[in-house]
Amino acid sequence: MEIKEKSINTLRILSVDMIQNANSGHPGMPLGCSPMLYILFSNFLKFSNNNINWINRDRFILSNGHGCALLYSLLYLFNYNMTMNDLKNFRKLHSNTPGHPEKNIKNMIDVTTGPLGQGIANGVGMAIAYKNLSEKFNKNDCVIFNNKIYVSCGDGCLMEGITNEAMSLAGHLKLNNLIILYDDNKISIDGSTDLTFTENTFDKYNAMGWNVLVVEDGNNDLVSINNKINIAQNSNKPVLIMIRTTIGYGTSKENSEKSHGTPIGEEDIINLKLNCNFDPTIDFYIPYDVMVHFNNLISQKNYNYTEWCNTFEYYKKSYIEDYNILKNFITNKINSLNSLPTFTDNDKSMATREISGLCLQSIHTHIPQLIGGSADLSPSNNTKIGNVLDFNNYSGKYIHYGVREHAMCAIANGISTCGFIPYVGTFLVFITYCIGAIRMAALSKHQVIYILTHDSIGLGEDGPTHQPIESLTILRSIPNLLTFRPADGKEVVGTYEQALTTKDKPSAIILSRQKLPQLVFTNSNMVCMGGYTLKKGENIILIATGSEVSLAINVMKELEKDGLSVGVVSMPCCELFDIQSKEYKEQVLPLNIIKISIEAGSTLGWYKYANYCIGIDTFGSSGDGDEVMDYFGFSVKKIKDKINLFIKFI
Amino acid sequence: MEIKEKSINTLRILSVDMIQNANSGHPGMPLGCSPMLYILFSNFLKFSNNNINWINRDRFILSNGHGCALLYSLLYLFNYNMTMNDLKNFRKLHSNTPGHPEKNIKNMIDVTTGPLGQGIANGVGMAIAYKNLSEKFNKNDCVIFNNKIYVSCGDGCLMEGITNEAMSLAGHLKLNNLIILYDDNKISIDGSTDLTFTENTFDKYNAMGWNVLVVEDGNNDLVSINNKINIAQNSNKPVLIMIRTTIGYGTSKENSEKSHGTPIGEEDIINLKLNCNFDPTIDFYIPYDVMVHFNNLISQKNYNYTEWCNTFEYYKKSYIEDYNILKNFITNKINSLNSLPTFTDNDKSMATREISGLCLQSIHTHIPQLIGGSADLSPSNNTKIGNVLDFNNYSGKYIHYGVREHAMCAIANGISTCGFIPYVGTFLVFITYCIGAIRMAALSKHQVIYILTHDSIGLGEDGPTHQPIESLTILRSIPNLLTFRPADGKEVVGTYEQALTTKDKPSAIILSRQKLPQLVFTNSNMVCMGGYTLKKGENIILIATGSEVSLAINVMKELEKDGLSVGVVSMPCCELFDIQSKEYKEQVLPLNIIKISIEAGSTLGWYKYANYCIGIDTFGSSGDGDEVMDYFGFSVKKIKDKINLFIKFI
Repeated sequence: MEIKEKSINTLRILSVDMIQNANSGHPGMPLGCSPMLYILFSNFLKFSNNNINWINRDRFILSNGHGCALLYSLLYLFNYNMTMNDLKNFRKLHSNTPGHPEKNIKNMIDVTTGPLGQGIANGVGMAIAYKNLSEKFNKNDCVIFNNKIYVSCGDGCLMEGITNEAMSLAGHLKLNNLIILYDDNKISIDGSTDLTFTENTFDKYNAMGWNVLVVEDGNNDLVSINNKINIAQNSNKPVLIMIRTTIGYGTSKENSEKSHGTPIGEEDIINLKLNCNFDPTIDFYIPYDVMVHFNNLISQKNYNYTEWCNTFEYYKKSYIEDYNILKNFITNKINSLNSLPTFTDNDKSMATREISGLCLQSIHTHIPQLIGGSADLSPSNNTKIGNVLDFNNYSGKYIHYGVREHAMCAIANGISTCGFIPYVGTFLVFITYCIGAIRMAALSKHQVIYILTHDSIGLGEDGPTHQPIESLTILRSIPNLLTFRPADGKEVVGTYEQALTTKDKPSAIILSRQKLPQLVFTNSNMVCMGGYTLKKGENIILIATGSEVSLAINVMKELEKDGLSVGVVSMPCCELFDIQSKEYKEQVLPLNIIKISIEAGSTLGWYKYANYCIGIDTFGSSGDGDEVMDYFGFSVKKIKDKINLFIKFI
Repeated sequence: MEIKEKSINTLRILSVDMIQNANSGHPGMPLGCSPMLYILFSNFLKFSNNNINWINRDRFILSNGHGCALLYSLLYLFNYNMTMNDLKNFRKLHSNTPGHPEKNIKNMIDVTTGPLGQGIANGVGMAIAYKNLSEKFNKNDCVIFNNKIYVSCGDGCLMEGITNEAMSLAGHLKLNNLIILYDDNKISIDGSTDLTFTENTFDKYNAMGWNVLVVEDGNNDLVSINNKINIAQNSNKPVLIMIRTTIGYGTSKENSEKSHGTPIGEEDIINLKLNCNFDPTIDFYIPYDVMVHFNNLISQKNYNYTEWCNTFEYYKKSYIEDYNILKNFITNKINSLNSLPTFTDNDKSMATREISGLCLQSIHTHIPQLIGGSADLSPSNNTKIGNVLDFNNYSGKYIHYGVREHAMCAIANGISTCGFIPYVGTFLVFITYCIGAIRMAALSKHQVIYILTHDSIGLGEDGPTHQPIESLTILRSIPNLLTFRPADGKEVVGTYEQALTTKDKPSAIILSRQKLPQLVFTNSNMVCMGGYTLKKGENIILIATGSEVSLAINVMKELEKDGLSVGVVSMPCCELFDIQSKEYKEQVLPLNIIKISIEAGSTLGWYKYANYCIGIDTFGSSGDGDEVMDYFGFSVKKIKDKINLFIKFI
């Protein structure tokens, strides 16, 4: 047997051994995809275990993340910070080899995958990011960026809507640095794809601006796999390679959904090993010649890396200014936030979305890593900056994402892994279209900024389809995500300071459509505390966010006329408040004072802080914004009455 | 001018008058789409203002819901429960004419639309439903169902991922009763679609199993519009008619995004009226001959309806058994829930997803309206019933939705409007892929049942990408949605009773992957109360849901060994508990007893009921389910220790 086939069989057997040992996992994909990923990793994928942070490293994304036993096997054979012990601990608590790939640069895993389609959209993001870096930094005599983005995916990924959104945009942008290997095995969990998925994939993606190539026998025809990936190197469009494989190849469950998600079984493993001339009594076995083969590949890759390093040394010397800018990308460093505007209570009333727009305008030239976009709501979200990034100018810094919220957020996740700080905009209510990718950002600790405008029933006439009720609660319930709802200019500035400097989590910035007054007591430097006292009070403390802070101040004034001592707390970010010291929290929200929350949205999360919660737990209504606000009880008088009623009964 | 052109101009002018009068709205679409919707409503759409509940009525869905001024104008001219006063109150609070169409059968509005793509998927659902009804009830000598589903949409709808999912399934299922009119105006909010949306639409949808027809001049060529809709009547596939129009047609802002979302302005309206030979000083004007023309159309439609009624009378007499079954669909009546299984604490431990599967198996033959499906997780969600619905057997009652969660939920919304009770399954964590459609179900009061399995970190090895943390909080934060998390067999049965009989809202049924014991104190008849006492206690009350109820009982036993009197409350549905009387709620959760919640998910929403909340506010981890549960503190010992610590400090 040739060393290539033997290596592929080693990968197959190693993967099923891992899954059998874990008694859990997905053997079908590794058995079918070992040939294509062996060819990709051996002959094409550019990486070096001498520098995991190599900026021109190729990217590989396992969008069909359930097949990660194969990825871990490859990382082990390529000696990429993966040990035999890791493989034996597959899917065990605290192991380095979890059930789906979790972001871990050490193991070449740039993005967490598993939920289908995310990885493809992440890949589109990386392809955009590297197109931008290439155009900005490459020189005629010195090409430092020429890497490719490879994604592997299955039928499931292609059925997801997010994939269509992402691939449509990739086709439009002519991202020819993006190559998708599609494991076309015709089987999904419910059975044959004939049950539900009978698109003409070839024609469809051609119509969407992709080059579509086909490998008829992805189980055995290594030459064809190699040729097609080779052709893809010089495409003028993104490339989808349809590789026909057999799920669970080489076992009694091949070509059946039964091989997808449960260990293949001892008997099948014995037969597989026998058929491959492996000793069936030995698990986790790497033949000596296979080991040598991979070591040679590693040496070649490291040699190639060294060559690039020479180029980069030349770049450093010859293009020092560009190099210094590039360093910001590499080190994720922000020059300065001094250019953010300043606001005082003397400034005119403005919608916080407008203030956000001013912030972006003033800082974007100072932060080259900033790259923005909106899902076709640029004028409404006030997100527009700089030049547009398009296929005729990849160096632009504004992306027209189209009406593609889910892909937009997942693309931003990919972009964020390439040294950029991406922000994206849509209406707050439409987080329901993209929360899957927002969750992945939080889970993967990507720095992505969501600019979410039209933040309450106060948006008015567009009605309940567009009026958020539950949105803030949804965002606050997601771990490792900061949700900001600033009240005025000062708090918007403080919010941007936090969002731009918080590197290990995404931030959602919630902004009003309607104008809000600039307040006296707010303080941009206090946003970092999450919540802070605007005015102290002895009897009652009103806690409010965003547009309701000015309302709370007015309610406070009215209540004080009746002789009560009323405090006001602005809570722009509950998550930051939660991590303050017990002393600080009890100073802002003393235990023995009645606390009342006021926010024009679901009350569900506010009982954590307040004894009485004023909010909206039904859907909104179409009408003039002020009238709608009043109808749902958000007027000084109605809130005051509610509070008086509440006090009377305690 | 011909009466047709005059009628179309009347619609255009009426729509912009409404928007100008409201000083808010979207004139671009009505100006461009009046011709196509006039032709559709006049020459094709089958309806009768004599019976809004006509079961063979054609369906029309405005997926580009922002263009609703045009729909309201059409309803007015067709005298379909729409008054001139309604038009004048467009977008005003409590009006009959909100800013986006809101479900209202009285006005032929079967589904709420606005968030893009939803309407198309709703249409796919209706097309499936009527294919099913046709195959089940039509007879060779008596066709009672032959209606069509028409959807209008714009570029925005086609960019959304949900649309691709829905249209892919529609193509697979060969739903030739579905016709989409695509307002191909090449403009979105950010500007020309050249900015971001350059697919070859014709080829793409052909590749997805659609017939694609083209109208080159949708502004003027009424004959072509008519011909293409006519051709679509006899297609063997679903039909997409690309109708090239000009947004904002006839105004100075035509062919510009500026005409999309703000009133067109007085000057433009005057010019438009002058150009159409309308008096520019009169608003809301209907020429007499136009009124007569529409009255003639109404008469014709009512005559056609009467003819169908004769057919239906014959059906009633000749096919009484089928008629009686059909009556259940028409009246939304459930025969009996007696066939649900019964469970006792003597039964073996089972995963609640398995119990759910048994419930579905036992009731589906008794409830013909039940129609199920899963997003490619049928064996994991235990959702499979009866025969598969596919293009070779539309009478089946199980749909393989493919990996298309968002479309699945929106399709279910459409199905629910045709007399069916649809249920759909996926993993709980993947509500992040479909919450947009779940929100629409809640807003529109559709009866849809979500079967959401693998409900906590207890699912184990698949890891944090698959382990819900925030999901229950998300569902509970959405108004008008019931979220059930039953603890055992009895509670699953009680949950199905509630979900099947609650007609005006969707229900989410949250189920475990892992086995759970059958409990002594649970009671299926108490699920309707939302929360109830399993055991009374004087010192502490533990509140738990689902898999944590048995845990809470064991913790209670341990704490009582130390001399505490500890109660246990099962809370399968917070939303139902919330609407109980104050007395009942204080009986279950007395004010003066310490209350502690235990749920393996976000604690955010639990402060509403508990003084101390035990949950998980970080992401989970890949590993054996029991080990993961223990690691995150969900063991009797760890919870007991936490509670003891909490008590010590209060």
